[in-house]
Amino acid sequence: MKTEWRGFKGTHWVDEVDVRDFVQNNYTPYDGDDSFLQPPTEATSKLWDILQGLQKEERAKGGVLDMETEVVSGITAYKAAYMAEGTKDLEKVVGLQTDKPLKRAFMPFGGIKMAEQACETYGYKPNPKFHKIFTEYHKTHNQGVYDAYTPEMRLARKNKIITGLPDTYGRGRIVGDYRRVALYGIDFLIAKKKEDMAHCGCGIMTDDIIRQREEITDQIRALMQMKEMAADYGYDISGPAKNAREAVQWLYFGYLAAIKTQNGAAMSVGRISTFLDIYIQRDLAEGTLTESEAQELIDHLVLKFRMVKFARIPSYNQLFSGDPVWATLEVGGLGMDGRSMVTKNDFRFLHTLENMGPSPEPNLTILYTRHLPKAFRDYAAKISINTSSVQYENDDVMRPIWGDDYSICCCVSATETGKEMQFFGARANLAKCMLYAINGGVDEQTFMQVGPELRPITSEYLDYDEVMERFDKMMDWLAGLYVNTLNLIHYMHDKYYYEAAELALIDTDVRRTFATGIAGFSHVVDSLCAIKYAKVKTVRNEQGVVVGYETEGDFPRYGNDDDRADTIAVWLLKTFMKKLRKFHTYRNSEPTTSILTITSNVVYGKATGDLPDGRKSGEPLSPGANPSYGAEQTGLLASLNSVAKLPYEYALDGISNTQTISPDALGHSLEERINNLVRVMDGYFARGAHHLNVNIFGTEKLIDAMEHPEKPEYANFTIRVSGYAVKFIDLTREQQLDVISRTCHKSM
Amino acid sequence: MKTEWRGFKGTHWVDEVDVRDFVQNNYTPYDGDDSFLQPPTEATSKLWDILQGLQKEERAKGGVLDMETEVVSGITAYKAAYMAEGTKDLEKVVGLQTDKPLKRAFMPFGGIKMAEQACETYGYKPNPKFHKIFTEYHKTHNQGVYDAYTPEMRLARKNKIITGLPDTYGRGRIVGDYRRVALYGIDFLIAKKKEDMAHCGCGIMTDDIIRQREEITDQIRALMQMKEMAADYGYDISGPAKNAREAVQWLYFGYLAAIKTQNGAAMSVGRISTFLDIYIQRDLAEGTLTESEAQELIDHLVLKFRMVKFARIPSYNQLFSGDPVWATLEVGGLGMDGRSMVTKNDFRFLHTLENMGPSPEPNLTILYTRHLPKAFRDYAAKISINTSSVQYENDDVMRPIWGDDYSICCCVSATETGKEMQFFGARANLAKCMLYAINGGVDEQTFMQVGPELRPITSEYLDYDEVMERFDKMMDWLAGLYVNTLNLIHYMHDKYYYEAAELALIDTDVRRTFATGIAGFSHVVDSLCAIKYAKVKTVRNEQGVVVGYETEGDFPRYGNDDDRADTIAVWLLKTFMKKLRKFHTYRNSEPTTSILTITSNVVYGKATGDLPDGRKSGEPLSPGANPSYGAEQTGLLASLNSVAKLPYEYALDGISNTQTISPDALGHSLEERINNLVRVMDGYFARGAHHLNVNIFGTEKLIDAMEHPEKPEYANFTIRVSGYAVKFIDLTREQQLDVISRTCHKSM
Repeated sequence: MKTEWRGFKGTHWVDEVDVRDFVQNNYTPYDGDDSFLQPPTEATSKLWDILQGLQKEERAKGGVLDMETEVVSGITAYKAAYMAEGTKDLEKVVGLQTDKPLKRAFMPFGGIKMAEQACETYGYKPNPKFHKIFTEYHKTHNQGVYDAYTPEMRLARKNKIITGLPDTYGRGRIVGDYRRVALYGIDFLIAKKKEDMAHCGCGIMTDDIIRQREEITDQIRALMQMKEMAADYGYDISGPAKNAREAVQWLYFGYLAAIKTQNGAAMSVGRISTFLDIYIQRDLAEGTLTESEAQELIDHLVLKFRMVKFARIPSYNQLFSGDPVWATLEVGGLGMDGRSMVTKNDFRFLHTLENMGPSPEPNLTILYTRHLPKAFRDYAAKISINTSSVQYENDDVMRPIWGDDYSICCCVSATETGKEMQFFGARANLAKCMLYAINGGVDEQTFMQVGPELRPITSEYLDYDEVMERFDKMMDWLAGLYVNTLNLIHYMHDKYYYEAAELALIDTDVRRTFATGIAGFSHVVDSLCAIKYAKVKTVRNEQGVVVGYETEGDFPRYGNDDDRADTIAVWLLKTFMKKLRKFHTYRNSEPTTSILTITSNVVYGKATGDLPDGRKSGEPLSPGANPSYGAEQTGLLASLNSVAKLPYEYALDGISNTQTISPDALGHSLEERINNLVRVMDGYFARGAHHLNVNIFGTEKLIDAMEHPEKPEYANFTIRVSGYAVKFIDLTREQQLDVISRTCHKSM
Repeated sequence: MKTEWRGFKGTHWVDEVDVRDFVQNNYTPYDGDDSFLQPPTEATSKLWDILQGLQKEERAKGGVLDMETEVVSGITAYKAAYMAEGTKDLEKVVGLQTDKPLKRAFMPFGGIKMAEQACETYGYKPNPKFHKIFTEYHKTHNQGVYDAYTPEMRLARKNKIITGLPDTYGRGRIVGDYRRVALYGIDFLIAKKKEDMAHCGCGIMTDDIIRQREEITDQIRALMQMKEMAADYGYDISGPAKNAREAVQWLYFGYLAAIKTQNGAAMSVGRISTFLDIYIQRDLAEGTLTESEAQELIDHLVLKFRMVKFARIPSYNQLFSGDPVWATLEVGGLGMDGRSMVTKNDFRFLHTLENMGPSPEPNLTILYTRHLPKAFRDYAAKISINTSSVQYENDDVMRPIWGDDYSICCCVSATETGKEMQFFGARANLAKCMLYAINGGVDEQTFMQVGPELRPITSEYLDYDEVMERFDKMMDWLAGLYVNTLNLIHYMHDKYYYEAAELALIDTDVRRTFATGIAGFSHVVDSLCAIKYAKVKTVRNEQGVVVGYETEGDFPRYGNDDDRADTIAVWLLKTFMKKLRKFHTYRNSEPTTSILTITSNVVYGKATGDLPDGRKSGEPLSPGANPSYGAEQTGLLASLNSVAKLPYEYALDGISNTQTISPDALGHSLEERINNLVRVMDGYFARGAHHLNVNIFGTEKLIDAMEHPEKPEYANFTIRVSGYAVKFIDLTREQQLDVISRTCHKSM
């Protein structure tokens, strides 16, 4: 055993890259409480003050502190840089994306126009030479996509029935196994990739094999650059990390390589908590680290995750509001052997929200099951109640599918760490699709013929069977167009913006999922219920296009544990997923779907006309798998029960549910609130639900924060929205109003 | 009919891109003699003097007059430029590759290292920013190839059993149908490509369809740039050419776009002669052009073809000596309807060799059949006798396969104009392969294990059956490795160095051939004959590797019309071709092969050890399909008969044969010589032979030119080598000695 690995157990992980095996052989489960946790050190407080100052300055400057205009980002594009003058020794974890904290890098490979526009939006002007270079010499991902799009794709995109496509920036959602850098060091990883290269193909050079061989070489190149980057910071990462501090630092260098080269919407960190605990435990046992120093390491690592920034354009910010990066990081979960994987480190990561206050990033995710130690569940609930900054996902439904070493690669989507990547696919608006079914493919807002010219419905009152028949055909069209649009996008992304640094830390024989997504879910369900159970009269414009609906009578709605509605919800998910599966997918990836809209529900709603469920044109859609605003009439538990009925195996990319509970509804003391919240989650997840964002505050606090964003208590006021957390004051007023209008449960 | 098309007949070509149909409907066959031809105009003489001065200066400067170091070549990279100050109005055809005549462009897309080395070889230093751009921002073709090569491929390449691979520069051999620019104008071509785009794929986005969609867009972009480039010269090429001068100019702009964007070994012009004659005939008939002006147009066009230059590296120059560009251009041939396609213009093109003296470029190729008018055959023979600058290819064997509108895309390889492209594949050294068969895959010069570790031959005397069995297996290996190496190269070329400008002028639904080639052909045949008919004793080194052969007794040799040898020649070609066909080829292209070595026979010979036929290690191989030096013992006709036995259908990429005939052997008067040469070619081609390079001079002239290159009469002294023509004084001394040592037939 190498000296760096002193005291570690296990054999498989020693000569093969197998971090999961290392973790399972070496971690120390912890079922105690939070009493061991330590407050921030002086260094932590100082650095956090500096960062808060920078964040304030950033907000004062309109959301961007500084932007690069002269340097194309890359792993080795910058020399070593620190948070401020004199902080080098304070920073227990070093490494910045650029040469200054919060300065956003220039990343043109996704699209030169986007990179330029991002600069110009904030008053910066990139060196014009880059325009020539990334137009004449190197084509960008965005140009590649547009060179191949069909008119039908452009039209569907323009009319927003397919939305949020990653065709102008990095697709993200690829979690490198950054732990590998710490456990093995770069040289071993390069040697293993060279072995893979030697076994790549039998010599018959098909396109697939050629592509893969080139990719492996690019990965090896990225690994060598990581060494170079680390060396500039004074670290030699060619070998394994020798202690906890190095492990944290090595791991962060791996992640830093990713965020220096890719600007994906989601740049997740992965499942690092239990892994790092092993190093901390060893140092604690060897007497080379104190608990306070351990917490400091984690605090500083989290501080760095709170600093990740990308240059974005206004239309992007509308979709993904509040500058999220989805530096998602998991705690909790069980092993395949039934042991809890909760370690002290899982407490430490949650504790950062106390030591440095609430924060949207890293996107802390608790892999939840009622089989986790009670003390941990309590502590998580306490953090939720105090910060509204964490989310919960059901380890019991994910573990059977992804094993016990999965990472969340974005908001809620699981991927096996180091073994899998995802082709991110944004979402299709099924509410619009239903309207297209009624109008024979004519858009209800632009009146353009977007979908196929199928026979429209001409009757005054909608007939359920007729609508269902037409909707089925229109979904066939949409599923095909959607999958093929994504095929093209991912082909171009691999060609022009390949994630060499992230994929260097993933197995060469990678499993690929092909993520799609559904928007407008609850509205389709409620609308179909209205057509089935009430009377829906069409309101037509002069051309006969249905532009409004008058619904007479009552009808069941999704979100009330009413099977009449919930059965339709299940049918809708299964049907669309089955249709998606019919089509060829890029690199034979496995199609999945999600019910997840992030903050884009507002933009999607703007582009969607009147619906039979009573939602008016332009109003926000309800986010993710949430019931429609106002639909939930029977309390929190009934609402949760409805969502829990959706079968996760048909939405492996995730089913996002965001709930806001008034503190008083949970109880009168903190203890009571904790107990009640734990009980709610135990029950919800036991029913097979996938995800829950928990917000604990009342509407009045939101209104006050909207009206008085300058109050110091709102500077870091964080809320969970669909799939991530955001500082409330960073949302647009429109989105703030949307959040305020969502159901806040005042009773169970 | 558009006014530009006044007087033209036919219907198909009017609304579809179909230049062949236009030609067949409108050309005027000419069976008269050369008496109508006109001498050079004053402008022509002046321009030719300028060019000769520049060429002299170029030679004085070591082979390169000037090189670009600041501008990356591209269709619109330069403003309009002319041959010299004040020549703008003299030049009836305008357009330079760069901003100065003979200045070589900077073309990094094939490989930045190659582009830099080419500069540095001649004392130039490209702007260092390009190194960063074409290393960090844009990967080049060369880097892509090396990123994917297997160790086996690198080893085979290093040991030169596979050689001349287009992995550091443009693959060339793609002939855009430049006539389309003249006949249709750019706007029509763009409209047609847009139509193709609209019909590209059914919506299912497989990789193939995505790639093709992107390629069509890149083609359209190139077409738009051609308009821009022409506009800078003061021409609007959006519509068809209105007269002969415009037709010549429009066509040249199309070709200019190709040579501004690609540095392929072969950048051929294609079958333009008969096409342009149609415009000249119309102008002559309309009284807007005189014969002298017509000749001037052709002279000036040819002058431009004589100016094409690329920056090359020393190792490239060793393979393809004398700065060839294969601006191959065809005259002659029959139509599918049996009519001669010889027009006055075919005379005019050959006449440029009289008006401006001999020249290697354009690589004038006569599509020969004895059914061409006698006056034309006589004139071609006269040009051969006087200039040794033209080659002959058998239209009767090519026409049934490629139709009557094929172009020669390099030395001798036919492709259907505007309908086809070729993946150029250099060649495999079958002589080395035979030695590998004897030595169990061990290289006879480097002693490295290059081929598979098959059982070597251990006997003292070689047994024919045993050698044949081993050779068969070694050829299996070589064919597979060779095809797969090319698969990889062409994948990367499409990815990093796609020929958008050339392919914009070719049908979208392009037929693709996959060219391979054979080196060492005659030596393998003769060696197998030696093993079969004589006694071949092996000479081994200490390790038991056979490094020499002692052959006792006489044996038949290829090149004497002796079926014992010639049968083995036919067997060898067929066998290797059948083996090549077994493997997957990139983009499902059709595999072909050639027996063609250009001047690389010298380099290949250096890398090939002793052979059983008596050729010593390091000596040049005989070029192309030529019999070995000294093997031909029974005169020219017997030699030609041997070569003619090789079945063209197994070597669709061409069978090159280069012969030198002493003038005296042909006769004592010019008339006698013409008649004899025509008779020789009529007979040779009637036997189904494919190609003949005809040199008419004696060895003493070569020796004198080698010793006294400064003599004015040798400045343009041009000889045919395997597949192209070259100025003798531009060859290295080594190559000159090789040429001198080749058989010069002193009798028939």
